[in-house]
Amino acid sequence: MKIAISTGGGDAPGLNAVIRGVVLSAMQRGWTVYGIQRGFGGLLGDAQIIPVTRETVRGITHLGGTILGTTNRGNPFSWPVKQPDGSTTEVDRSDEVVAAFRRLGLDAMIVVGGDGSLKIAQRLCEKGLPIVGVPKTIDNDVKGTVITFGFDTAVNTATDAIDKLHSTAESHERVFVVEVMGRHAGWIALNSGLAGTADVILIPEIPFDIGKVCDKVLEREMTGKHFSIVVAAEGAHPIGGGEVLQEGKKAGATERLGGVGELVARQIADRTGKETRAVVLGHLQRGGSPTTFDRLLALRFGAAAVRAVEAKQFGRMVALDPPAIVTVPFAEALEGSSGVPLDHDSIQTARDLGICLGD
Amino acid sequence: MKIAISTGGGDAPGLNAVIRGVVLSAMQRGWTVYGIQRGFGGLLGDAQIIPVTRETVRGITHLGGTILGTTNRGNPFSWPVKQPDGSTTEVDRSDEVVAAFRRLGLDAMIVVGGDGSLKIAQRLCEKGLPIVGVPKTIDNDVKGTVITFGFDTAVNTATDAIDKLHSTAESHERVFVVEVMGRHAGWIALNSGLAGTADVILIPEIPFDIGKVCDKVLEREMTGKHFSIVVAAEGAHPIGGGEVLQEGKKAGATERLGGVGELVARQIADRTGKETRAVVLGHLQRGGSPTTFDRLLALRFGAAAVRAVEAKQFGRMVALDPPAIVTVPFAEALEGSSGVPLDHDSIQTARDLGICLGD
Amino acid sequence: MKIAISTGGGDAPGLNAVIRGVVLSAMQRGWTVYGIQRGFGGLLGDAQIIPVTRETVRGITHLGGTILGTTNRGNPFSWPVKQPDGSTTEVDRSDEVVAAFRRLGLDAMIVVGGDGSLKIAQRLCEKGLPIVGVPKTIDNDVKGTVITFGFDTAVNTATDAIDKLHSTAESHERVFVVEVMGRHAGWIALNSGLAGTADVILIPEIPFDIGKVCDKVLEREMTGKHFSIVVAAEGAHPIGGGEVLQEGKKAGATERLGGVGELVARQIADRTGKETRAVVLGHLQRGGSPTTFDRLLALRFGAAAVRAVEAKQFGRMVALDPPAIVTVPFAEALEGSSGVPLDHDSIQTARDLGICLGD
Amino acid sequence: MKIAISTGGGDAPGLNAVIRGVVLSAMQRGWTVYGIQRGFGGLLGDAQIIPVTRETVRGITHLGGTILGTTNRGNPFSWPVKQPDGSTTEVDRSDEVVAAFRRLGLDAMIVVGGDGSLKIAQRLCEKGLPIVGVPKTIDNDVKGTVITFGFDTAVNTATDAIDKLHSTAESHERVFVVEVMGRHAGWIALNSGLAGTADVILIPEIPFDIGKVCDKVLEREMTGKHFSIVVAAEGAHPIGGGEVLQEGKKAGATERLGGVGELVARQIADRTGKETRAVVLGHLQRGGSPTTFDRLLALRFGAAAVRAVEAKQFGRMVALDPPAIVTVPFAEALEGSSGVPLDHDSIQTARDLGICLGD
Repeated sequence: MKIAISTGGGDAPGLNAVIRGVVLSAMQRGWTVYGIQRGFGGLLGDAQIIPVTRETVRGITHLGGTILGTTNRGNPFSWPVKQPDGSTTEVDRSDEVVAAFRRLGLDAMIVVGGDGSLKIAQRLCEKGLPIVGVPKTIDNDVKGTVITFGFDTAVNTATDAIDKLHSTAESHERVFVVEVMGRHAGWIALNSGLAGTADVILIPEIPFDIGKVCDKVLEREMTGKHFSIVVAAEGAHPIGGGEVLQEGKKAGATERLGGVGELVARQIADRTGKETRAVVLGHLQRGGSPTTFDRLLALRFGAAAVRAVEAKQFGRMVALDPPAIVTVPFAEALEGSSGVPLDHDSIQTARDLGICLGD
Repeated sequence: MKIAISTGGGDAPGLNAVIRGVVLSAMQRGWTVYGIQRGFGGLLGDAQIIPVTRETVRGITHLGGTILGTTNRGNPFSWPVKQPDGSTTEVDRSDEVVAAFRRLGLDAMIVVGGDGSLKIAQRLCEKGLPIVGVPKTIDNDVKGTVITFGFDTAVNTATDAIDKLHSTAESHERVFVVEVMGRHAGWIALNSGLAGTADVILIPEIPFDIGKVCDKVLEREMTGKHFSIVVAAEGAHPIGGGEVLQEGKKAGATERLGGVGELVARQIADRTGKETRAVVLGHLQRGGSPTTFDRLLALRFGAAAVRAVEAKQFGRMVALDPPAIVTVPFAEALEGSSGVPLDHDSIQTARDLGICLGD
Repeated sequence: MKIAISTGGGDAPGLNAVIRGVVLSAMQRGWTVYGIQRGFGGLLGDAQIIPVTRETVRGITHLGGTILGTTNRGNPFSWPVKQPDGSTTEVDRSDEVVAAFRRLGLDAMIVVGGDGSLKIAQRLCEKGLPIVGVPKTIDNDVKGTVITFGFDTAVNTATDAIDKLHSTAESHERVFVVEVMGRHAGWIALNSGLAGTADVILIPEIPFDIGKVCDKVLEREMTGKHFSIVVAAEGAHPIGGGEVLQEGKKAGATERLGGVGELVARQIADRTGKETRAVVLGHLQRGGSPTTFDRLLALRFGAAAVRAVEAKQFGRMVALDPPAIVTVPFAEALEGSSGVPLDHDSIQTARDLGICLGD
Repeated sequence: MKIAISTGGGDAPGLNAVIRGVVLSAMQRGWTVYGIQRGFGGLLGDAQIIPVTRETVRGITHLGGTILGTTNRGNPFSWPVKQPDGSTTEVDRSDEVVAAFRRLGLDAMIVVGGDGSLKIAQRLCEKGLPIVGVPKTIDNDVKGTVITFGFDTAVNTATDAIDKLHSTAESHERVFVVEVMGRHAGWIALNSGLAGTADVILIPEIPFDIGKVCDKVLEREMTGKHFSIVVAAEGAHPIGGGEVLQEGKKAGATERLGGVGELVARQIADRTGKETRAVVLGHLQRGGSPTTFDRLLALRFGAAAVRAVEAKQFGRMVALDPPAIVTVPFAEALEGSSGVPLDHDSIQTARDLGICLGD
């Protein structure tokens, strides 16, 4: 058996552990493994394909990043091609990917990726390629799996940052607004906000009323707590249409300028008179050594993906259905993202603890 | 409503977060909370009962230990009483506990504890006390819940130790045997061994053949890897009757002397000629600041216990059935401990990665 | 003896350890200690003074922030007083501070603070108050002491962030510009940049040529390293007058907008075509649990301050002159700040390692 | 120029950073660097010498261990040679080392090592080899340098362990005796004991009276603190001749059995009746990723060693004389080890804080 593995899209702590899990499991079966660098593009043109052996994956379990690189050159179904006049048009090069796959004599491919990469994988499956997926998303918003690797590390980084700000907030009698990742799902904000004992947590699933947020800050002020910590998912938005966010986008020269963190901070400062600062964690959340939890989950996903290949469960991705690892069809996993259900007990826990969710 | 909370038995990171979860959730409902210090004994004689308020639980989420103390004075059903002649007899003082509970006008009690404490809670329930349990076990061996708080922190501490030993093992060309917790369940050994990329993992669920262990060390030696890491749960034992362990117990003046770590290390040294050292992590695994995962789970358990009290779900304990928190009857949770099932995918993952499990 | 302690100005990890060092050392001598909350203002009007005992300082060594608060209400020599018309004028209330000190029957005061607080302390000394100082500055720019507590923690936080970004930078083939603290001194940038193996380090002591910075990024690109890490102290500025910074300040609605991180990132993106992101660590560097190094130094400073009080070494601050703790006159410590000397071996080390310093 | 580098003796966090510092600094000068594996023995017989380049040292700054291995095969001045009858005799093979050095055309050698390795280096210097040393000792007991790399990491690991045990000690009302490294010098015990707020610290420099230790435990018991933490350097010993230790050594099958930790724990248990446990950190202190402080110091040492080679300062080792890196003659550095001076302010700080030092 000859199999290939690729890791595309954004960085996520645990990618190297998945690769190690795949390679060792495959070699245990006497298979050969190739790494496709830089996403599906690695199968186009000057194919960037390297053999991956026991030596290659030695000592990488706890390293962040990926030894295969994550930079996607693009989607083979709409590949950007520069025209002589400088413009760019998109060309369907998926047949070339299929051809390259055949030419290399590959028996199967394991694609570690988020929504985007898995959708491409699904379409390539439909064209006959034998692919097994491994879900990758920091935001924990892929359907079909209770949790994905990288998420625990991201929550950890966010909680650690909240911890650090806590003592300064208290000593300085300040409000901090910590903007964490999560465009469509509030998992990182909710979990790190709870673990870091935030006073306000704003998530995309619950549009917020800035008045309620300020009320919380002032209520704390009244009871002698002259500081507050607000954790906001980057996708959090106010009730009634997201004007706050749009205003920011208009004004902003850089992407970050109009971030919800800045805007909420400014409004709290204006309305409560408290000194308020925004801290945007950004890429810090994607990097670093994976936590023990993520290392373990990533190794299990890698090994499970090889078992899925062995069982010819193509067109499916591995998933965690605790305590078991299962496989689910791509179609099921890719039908919309999975945010925090409003009846999740963590939402209830937040309310029970007296945390303001902006509503 | 007036409720009480106690935290008995061994230490586990997250106890303070449970207390905070309980107290804030209860106060949100206008209830009063009392902390019973030093386990059930706190309800006997000079009752050590303190009011626990918002102030008491401020800033304790990330602290190890418990503000209520965990030292149990004993089991009220067989309470040790010193006799004039110096000997000790056991007396059933459970009625006094019930009486103290009534006298204090308590409406319910939340007991955070392991097997021992929960069994006492079950019997007190049968005597009419309205009790809700919260499972606590570092070893992750309580039935009825997929996972308990404290476990992730313990695995983390063990993995961190394995990581530290790894570089020394490699540079010095040594074998290290790391003895971790787990008398009856190999969860900590299995998870930390996988995450820390151990070469051999020995768990109570799989009796080991020391010959196989040495073969693995020598096989690595042959392929140029002049070091090995063995992770052994304290309850791991050899195939065919545990003679190795017994020999140690006979000789040993202290509990640790005959530990499986020392014995396995000695045998590896004798049989392979490799310099081999045992490292016993012991209590390091019970302490420290809880991980983000444990903080969150503990807060959720605390809040869920209060909701269970509100719903009068007495005689039950809260449990994690991902992604939900549920309650299960004490009877179900206490019917034997839950070790690693031999068909768990982590066992399979270990084998796929080429890790020796001693069989 | 009755002594007082105050902690004013910005947050710094280790403040609580200093307080503990002072309190335990003083109580060992049978003295009484009072904590003055919220800086010198605590001695004005409704004096916010609390007794600090062995119990108060229990378990605080490893906690960030300060149990006394750091929020200064102002400088007693130019105290802001609101006028009926809403404006603010400044009044010299230093005599009131002296009077309050006498009225409380204090024998000495220990002031933990940065430049600002120590200058006030110096002037109060001249008015006859018996004061000993403890230097506090994250930036490590106080003269007279080789190093101060809090600095090691800040460098650690910055290095940790750089480590996290490293793997993402490499996997994604990106440039990250990490802006760290240091308005006048480049110590944090230099030390974290070295420890985190940055490719470019920009410090206030060496005005930078953006062309040189871009050359370094492109040189790496040529040799197959498609990513770079730039660490910039917030006070770093370009050769020839700081236009880059001024441009930013003009445009900026918020303080952070015109930060050197953003501006350098924009210029690198424009000139090299590489995807470049700025990450501003900001307050993350001031908070968190102090490192072992900082805990130890802070305890030593606290104990040394009490010994200095005992020896009546007023008008001086404690300082580290490795391996000894000494005292130096305020005058000596406050004569300008201490940046990185250009002949410091860390500068030479950076050049030897091939790191671009912007010149 | 062609230079060689070797890393011999025990593991120490920061070795890889030294190697990186040496290699990048040397290559910046256009030199070639060879790594000698497994100590001086690498120059004997089948020389294990590898070229070390920019690629070899990429991404190793934060890794524990050493890419060159530390396992010494022996001292070339008394090299163990197996005789036909199975016995071992020692042969002076130092001339072979000198010959190998010449044959390889090396211009200089950088030896990173502790007492043992540096003494060999000194003797080889006397035979004409141009050698510069870099001191390596976890225990911080090399003379001539205020501090060495690896020490901060070891103190950190020890403090972290003490922190973990603290909460359990308190919750369980127990005494823990933590045995840390330091055969001849108490630096690790003193620094980690202070930072971890131990109640008793035992170091080799101050023979202890077990009665005083028990008095401290009981005094705490009286004042409601039902737990104590004792930190003992492995070389700590009782007043009047070390009988306690000898007793242990006689009984012990393994090195650890008679450790001071176990013996002190047993005596405290016997004399005070408190439940007392020993925790032996052992090799955990030698491993792991170096702290920021150690990474920086190691890089500076590496770069300084190359500058020393350039300046032909052979027969000397680099050393930290804060804030500068200097060089000192081997003779000066090797004249006895440097323990904690009894008048060091950390000793005074410990006493001021009420910590028992056993005397």
